[in-house]
Amino acid sequence: MSTFRVDGAAAVDWVARYLESVGDYPVLSSVEPGAIKAALPAAPPDAAEPFAAVLRDLDQILLPGITHWQSPRHFAYFATTAAEPGILAELLIAGLNQVGILWRASPALQELEEVTLDWLRQLLGLPEPLHGHIEDTASSGLITALAAARAANPDRRIVVCSEHTHSSTAKAARLLELELRSTPADAAFAIRADQLDLSGACAVVATVGTTSSAAVDPIAAVAARANDEGVWLHVDAAYAGAAAVCPELRHHFAGWERADSIGVNPHKWLFAPMDCSAFFCRRPDDLRRAFSLVPDYLQVDEDVVSLSEFSSPLGRRFRALKLWATLRCFGRDGLQAIIREHVRLAQLFESWVESEPGWELCAPRSFSLVCFRKVGSDEENEAIMRQANDSGEIFLSHTKLDGRFVLRLAIGNARTTEADVALAWEVLRRATVR
Amino acid sequence: MSTFRVDGAAAVDWVARYLESVGDYPVLSSVEPGAIKAALPAAPPDAAEPFAAVLRDLDQILLPGITHWQSPRHFAYFATTAAEPGILAELLIAGLNQVGILWRASPALQELEEVTLDWLRQLLGLPEPLHGHIEDTASSGLITALAAARAANPDRRIVVCSEHTHSSTAKAARLLELELRSTPADAAFAIRADQLDLSGACAVVATVGTTSSAAVDPIAAVAARANDEGVWLHVDAAYAGAAAVCPELRHHFAGWERADSIGVNPHKWLFAPMDCSAFFCRRPDDLRRAFSLVPDYLQVDEDVVSLSEFSSPLGRRFRALKLWATLRCFGRDGLQAIIREHVRLAQLFESWVESEPGWELCAPRSFSLVCFRKVGSDEENEAIMRQANDSGEIFLSHTKLDGRFVLRLAIGNARTTEADVALAWEVLRRATVR
Repeated sequence: MSTFRVDGAAAVDWVARYLESVGDYPVLSSVEPGAIKAALPAAPPDAAEPFAAVLRDLDQILLPGITHWQSPRHFAYFATTAAEPGILAELLIAGLNQVGILWRASPALQELEEVTLDWLRQLLGLPEPLHGHIEDTASSGLITALAAARAANPDRRIVVCSEHTHSSTAKAARLLELELRSTPADAAFAIRADQLDLSGACAVVATVGTTSSAAVDPIAAVAARANDEGVWLHVDAAYAGAAAVCPELRHHFAGWERADSIGVNPHKWLFAPMDCSAFFCRRPDDLRRAFSLVPDYLQVDEDVVSLSEFSSPLGRRFRALKLWATLRCFGRDGLQAIIREHVRLAQLFESWVESEPGWELCAPRSFSLVCFRKVGSDEENEAIMRQANDSGEIFLSHTKLDGRFVLRLAIGNARTTEADVALAWEVLRRATVR
Repeated sequence: MSTFRVDGAAAVDWVARYLESVGDYPVLSSVEPGAIKAALPAAPPDAAEPFAAVLRDLDQILLPGITHWQSPRHFAYFATTAAEPGILAELLIAGLNQVGILWRASPALQELEEVTLDWLRQLLGLPEPLHGHIEDTASSGLITALAAARAANPDRRIVVCSEHTHSSTAKAARLLELELRSTPADAAFAIRADQLDLSGACAVVATVGTTSSAAVDPIAAVAARANDEGVWLHVDAAYAGAAAVCPELRHHFAGWERADSIGVNPHKWLFAPMDCSAFFCRRPDDLRRAFSLVPDYLQVDEDVVSLSEFSSPLGRRFRALKLWATLRCFGRDGLQAIIREHVRLAQLFESWVESEPGWELCAPRSFSLVCFRKVGSDEENEAIMRQANDSGEIFLSHTKLDGRFVLRLAIGNARTTEADVALAWEVLRRATVR
């Protein structure tokens, strides 16, 4: 298409302007369900349209339906960032359009994925040898881990986790027809290792940085038990794993080097665009036992194991390129600087809540997530959240802890400053006055 | 990052030059296993590097390890194209970094996905109502389909398919602990409907355009049987589904409107970048029964079902944007024109093989894949393929049909011309002379 350079310049300009102004948009989209759909043509065009029409409709039709994950005041779920190197890498990935179904289909894809995951292993302070590959999401990684655990222990059909383990564990267990056994949690929402019952279990899932409150399960104690009893330990560090880039935060991860598999999402807190979920495994042979299947039309001479033999999908995007670009353009120092700043901002916010009469903290804080609430009813807190989100100035989400409605302020966007966090606190306190 | 515009211009220029010159590269990478890995630094950098360093190393280190799927003379597996609108859409997708975990997290993502899949439904001539969503690959779609089939028929543990069904069916069955029953195929490598045994089966997988030879299973007959016996029919049209955009090719799909689920990969023959696999389903309630699980922290007011309730992953990229951009910038007319030209080129190649003494066709041709061989031994044909691929001028792959080594010429790159196909034939005949 001869217009590629012109269209490309327009697309880069669109993204540049978007990133320059993303803080000006209401963070949470306020469209009604069905509104975007109603504004789009019901049928596809017969004749070709120019790319400029796509950009026009992106502005006019789609933008109101965008919740701005790139905004510095997105504090919901786990805040994320697609930083610039990863954004541009996605352009390169699509331009090259590698389809990594086996090594020869893209040696660069497979070997860069292996090298980049090894870089990440080093950044996280994990020992070698450790197999690493990229999954789309941590949900898929859970399926990979539990399928391998089931294959390694075919007679055991139980997966142990706590009520604070991410729902993807339950979803994966359902897919794999494994039974969930919930193990008790302590007052800090972490697994009680002394009450862990691994009998008949093929796997146990422990978390560093749970989704609700970023609680830290006692990995070392769980790993000791799991290793002793031959139970596969998967450590879900989808969000908090990034913190292991900072040595002073590594104590939260003590023992994870003894896990059988680990999930860490660079698309969460390592500034890579969605989707990029790192999966590490000490037992790659068990992955292959669960997943390897090479049909005639993919049999080749090379004595190379393809990455498709370690998980479900056959086709594979060149995701490694965006992780590689991100790690290089930030460097270890750059990653550490942002993660440390996010932890500092969370500490600061925590101190504000703590010292404000009528507000309370609801969970210990280890990373960049603060769980808190106004002293009062669930309804009152829900109203505060709704008012804050309706203001458009910030977006935060909630969870339930000990049966109570709790607000979550998740700091994780690389553009977030102290002023943004201060504004969040201002908006929340203002909301309560009404 | 203040260098985004400069870096973005450089990235667009890189992709533009790549696409302009992609035909000049040896199609299949000739690096030795491990060579790319050895050329990359063993450890990540401490200090940030400029994006220009990424582009430099892409040229100097990675490019030799790229197999050029974008080349007009890539005839292996199923040839694909990431066309320009989809490439630029990937830039926008990454810039917006939507994380579609539930509707409110990106109303535009969810509603554009619904609308775009409905556009695709219309282009393919499928009747409404039909649920549609995007999976990463057809492999994942198979898992989705079979998990739903299992949930709908919990007492039946058999999946029926033929030896020509894609290996992802066997892989999905293994994950779901379902048993495979292979049903006989006829001389054209299509399922023999008269020999179909669906007793005790929860699902049957039929294919329009098998991976080996693009054979067409008798969908109407299989659908009639499956519907009668309450067995879930999944139609795998990952490659050939695109052909249904052309009315004159729709007779191959007769009956697929009665399938319970259908997979069609726009990243194969509809010019969207990897990854984009469309999944259609007449029984969305069964998908939700198999997959829906909404934890506390995602409970919201809106009465909207999130797309994450219909398959495994919770997080979701804004893939719809690239499919939408692709369908718009080609239009129905543009898609039809390229697909028709590819079919014409395949017919032409087929006629050359047919009229050349000492060569033979090995399977009926319905779409843009030609299966053929030199009359002679498997070793001779393997040597021809190796010589052809080593020449760098073309890349093609093989399969086994009736136990024999067969060459496959798959036409599917939007840049492929008659001259490219003629060159392929020239290279193949030349290879035999040695």
